[in-house]
Amino acid sequence: MYRSHNCGELRASHSNTEVTLSGWVQGVRDKGFMIYVDLRDRYGITQLYFDEERTPKAIIEKAQKLGREFVIQVKGNVIERASKNPNIPTGDIEVLVSELTILNKALVPPFTIEDKTDGGDDIRMKYRYLDIRRNPVKNSLIFRAKVAQEVRNYLSNDGFIEVETPYLIKSTPEGARDFVVPSRMNEGQFYALPQSPQTFKQLLMVGGMDKYYQIVKCFRDEDLRADRQPEFTQIDCEMAFVEQEDILNVFEGLTRHLLKEVNGVEVEKFPRMLYDDAMRLYGNDKPDIRFGMEFGELNAVTQHKDFGVFNNAELVVGIAVPGGNAYTRKEIDKLIDWVKRPQVGALGMIYSRCNDDGSFKSSVDKFYDQEDLAKWAEVTGANPGDLVCVLSGDTNKVRAQLSALRMELATRLGLRDPKVFAPLWVIDFPLLELDEGTGHYHAMHHPFTSPKPGQIELLDTNPGDVKANAYDLVLNGNEIGGGSIRIHDKETQAIMLKHLGFSDEDAKAQFGFLMDAFEYGAPPHGGLAFGLDRLVAILGGQETIRDFIAFPKNNSGRDVMIDAPAPIDDEQLKELSLKLNLKP
Amino acid sequence: MYRSHNCGELRASHSNTEVTLSGWVQGVRDKGFMIYVDLRDRYGITQLYFDEERTPKAIIEKAQKLGREFVIQVKGNVIERASKNPNIPTGDIEVLVSELTILNKALVPPFTIEDKTDGGDDIRMKYRYLDIRRNPVKNSLIFRAKVAQEVRNYLSNDGFIEVETPYLIKSTPEGARDFVVPSRMNEGQFYALPQSPQTFKQLLMVGGMDKYYQIVKCFRDEDLRADRQPEFTQIDCEMAFVEQEDILNVFEGLTRHLLKEVNGVEVEKFPRMLYDDAMRLYGNDKPDIRFGMEFGELNAVTQHKDFGVFNNAELVVGIAVPGGNAYTRKEIDKLIDWVKRPQVGALGMIYSRCNDDGSFKSSVDKFYDQEDLAKWAEVTGANPGDLVCVLSGDTNKVRAQLSALRMELATRLGLRDPKVFAPLWVIDFPLLELDEGTGHYHAMHHPFTSPKPGQIELLDTNPGDVKANAYDLVLNGNEIGGGSIRIHDKETQAIMLKHLGFSDEDAKAQFGFLMDAFEYGAPPHGGLAFGLDRLVAILGGQETIRDFIAFPKNNSGRDVMIDAPAPIDDEQLKELSLKLNLKP
Repeated sequence: MYRSHNCGELRASHSNTEVTLSGWVQGVRDKGFMIYVDLRDRYGITQLYFDEERTPKAIIEKAQKLGREFVIQVKGNVIERASKNPNIPTGDIEVLVSELTILNKALVPPFTIEDKTDGGDDIRMKYRYLDIRRNPVKNSLIFRAKVAQEVRNYLSNDGFIEVETPYLIKSTPEGARDFVVPSRMNEGQFYALPQSPQTFKQLLMVGGMDKYYQIVKCFRDEDLRADRQPEFTQIDCEMAFVEQEDILNVFEGLTRHLLKEVNGVEVEKFPRMLYDDAMRLYGNDKPDIRFGMEFGELNAVTQHKDFGVFNNAELVVGIAVPGGNAYTRKEIDKLIDWVKRPQVGALGMIYSRCNDDGSFKSSVDKFYDQEDLAKWAEVTGANPGDLVCVLSGDTNKVRAQLSALRMELATRLGLRDPKVFAPLWVIDFPLLELDEGTGHYHAMHHPFTSPKPGQIELLDTNPGDVKANAYDLVLNGNEIGGGSIRIHDKETQAIMLKHLGFSDEDAKAQFGFLMDAFEYGAPPHGGLAFGLDRLVAILGGQETIRDFIAFPKNNSGRDVMIDAPAPIDDEQLKELSLKLNLKP
Repeated sequence: MYRSHNCGELRASHSNTEVTLSGWVQGVRDKGFMIYVDLRDRYGITQLYFDEERTPKAIIEKAQKLGREFVIQVKGNVIERASKNPNIPTGDIEVLVSELTILNKALVPPFTIEDKTDGGDDIRMKYRYLDIRRNPVKNSLIFRAKVAQEVRNYLSNDGFIEVETPYLIKSTPEGARDFVVPSRMNEGQFYALPQSPQTFKQLLMVGGMDKYYQIVKCFRDEDLRADRQPEFTQIDCEMAFVEQEDILNVFEGLTRHLLKEVNGVEVEKFPRMLYDDAMRLYGNDKPDIRFGMEFGELNAVTQHKDFGVFNNAELVVGIAVPGGNAYTRKEIDKLIDWVKRPQVGALGMIYSRCNDDGSFKSSVDKFYDQEDLAKWAEVTGANPGDLVCVLSGDTNKVRAQLSALRMELATRLGLRDPKVFAPLWVIDFPLLELDEGTGHYHAMHHPFTSPKPGQIELLDTNPGDVKANAYDLVLNGNEIGGGSIRIHDKETQAIMLKHLGFSDEDAKAQFGFLMDAFEYGAPPHGGLAFGLDRLVAILGGQETIRDFIAFPKNNSGRDVMIDAPAPIDDEQLKELSLKLNLKP
């Protein structure tokens, strides 16, 4: 037996007990006549004590040779410490060691195994197994496991059945790029890894397996943006005989359960916001509503003067920055530079200071008088002491720019407290989205989302206006997940695919199995998927998902620890009937 | 709202309640003046009642047009039935329908949606979503979900942390063939899908993430034997600072928990059997111990006479067939034919009838007298009325043959009751196994299994004799899972890989990351993996795993429902820097 207790377990009540502990050497303090060793395992740290008078000399000598991260086993007696350490749960005791076994030596780790390490990102990824020993990573992984288990508990208590869908499926041209898997047994053919189990969960509904869930890996071969992973985990759900309201209620319940069990936070009923309102008020379909700073549209109160920039703009829109009148001219110039950065892309920014005495001072006093500026303040909800920032231009662009500014300012103002949770349903998403590059419409959610009843006729005339029973759950400005009521009849699915540019032939080849299934008694159904990585990171109060993934890949999709991907043998390629065709 | 209750919920106590139900039409009985419809959903069947006197005519007419598997919604009043049906939980009531909505029509299904269907395997696989509507499949999937949830509950209550390991990893030449995934971002390189998360769970142990578990998909590109799938699910576990005993205790506890919670069966402490004993007594490393029929080795009592077949045999071994003396000569001849089938491969079978009067009658009376045959009976444990069946030849072959015969006879004798559960630990597996084709040794478990302490020196002289702390859990003659204590130091791992034929260079290229990790303070560790598909099937009392997998593949690795794998676009191949290289 390697241990009688773990390193986080012993208390004063264990005094005078003989114990066996195993773990890693966190540190050694050799004071000559006595040696202290901090012994660490998953559960905590226990202080080991070696005493010149009571510990055999051979053991003392062995202890003196211990290095950081050595793996050892000790036997000894639990004693109360003379000076207790209130900072750790085992701080009342130490173990007076009578036997010491070195189970494994350790090289000096390439970075310190401390909460604040001296290791950079790259070295920590290469030695991820050492990084995992650090509390911030270890605790993130344990936190993730707790969230996942609470999700399962909640859903299975609510009658959901966990069903595993296949990983080796069929490639479809819709959506992101698939990862594919060559089949040896079916020469020249490929499986694809699922981007989501979407069609399978719909088939489960057709199969009567009402209330399905799964926590499942999904795969997308996209050029990786920061904080994206080629493989990610989804909480995937589907229900039959439901309307949007039923689905929102279940997953609002789940999210509330998680906030309570995992964060100890009770949240009121989640507000709901129309997609159109989210875009109008926050310039964004995932607004962070932990703070206000709602957009005020200023066209009506700006376009009656001779200021060409505003007059020629599709949208003039502003926000009030609380306390922003305190900014110096230099600080405001910096803010203007910030919105002009290529990542934001504004051409400039107009501002109006709201003085404490109720007067205003704007960067366009030449065009607008005090009365005008008072209206700006009124529309944006600015108070004396605030700063009104105004952008103008094409609606979609300017909303995105002002949204970026709003988030940046809120971060600077400390309004984005990770301990505060502000969930929000955004509903009534458009069915289709115009790709400005190609001029074609594509499915905003996916091709299986149902248009709102009675709107299908609009597809021919005003495709951009068709709304769907599609919804996203937003938490603190992040999209946690989304879903929709699905199409459940072959005709509508065929119309939808046609509008997305599929020929009848392609539609049949790609989705024939699903449309066939709809002919054999498909129930009305809908569902939702949450991104587990992101959800866990937000609940854990973190900005990035990486520490919540045990073995993440870098931005080139590489696992630098195991050095994957890697070339494979010619023999292996031959078996798969493939040849490399490298770019010149 | 599509339903106020589900179709398995209503009881006599609901009488005179207005309800809304949705579901599938299981069947219609039109008796002219009244119509009965069985409405089915995941939860059960409720009888709907349409009555010429009380139901509006338009609704009657609509009901008359309902076909099997139509999806409908009804409103109506719950009434107690005149003649109750005690066979279903809702049999006391029916719903007198006042409103009927057809939510979706259905074509006539290609096979009957009944417990006993008229559909063959192929058609049911193609329309798997319809097959799932049938109770045997539906209940198997629900059963699987319950087992998985109980596994998670047990392990997380025991302090295990669920950690997700990556799916896009690195191909290794060891073991079965990998499925590979070409990387677009890393030209000419490939990921592999994991055959198991073995190295990652060991790295988690090095990372201090003691007590890991995961229910995880694994992939093997093997030529498929019956009842194997290219993707399968594993309950994967690993623990640090443990000895074999600790691991067996945890997973014996888990298995006992499952038997109790899922099957309502209490099982005694699991017996343990040495691998060598299993081979000697059952000819098999996964003996079914629900019944006896242990092997008796007969060399000592057969090789003193002139019977050359036995005298030249490495092993002469027999079993007693209970009541087998009742077999006619013809039946015994058929049994001899059975063991001579190519799948079994015996050259013949000698038998000895144990008559009720204590005398014997054998097929080799020319060579053996009554005293000899009495010894055969004694060694095999045969009683009067039994039949002793004896095979002879090379030890390994003859054991496998007699094991097959033992299982066949037990099946015929009804000794393999799926409601009886006989778990067994088989322990002390050999470290290496001789591949008789190549003459090389390979790892019996995997290259990370540790030899028993003190036996590593034997690797040079008697590699086949080295035993490992490796163990399998066997349930009713099936290997449910297995594991081992792992190597945790670089030197031993290097020796092991060398003995498995890896050059230093290959060892470093393939497993360098693991051996490096062992230098930074690796704890002693070990673990185990259970095959979930097989475990669930056995707990469910079934022989095959297929009904416990929602969307299984056929024996060519195809999903015939979605028609995968399939060719991909040239464009997609080009992006992956690949060309087809089809066999001529």
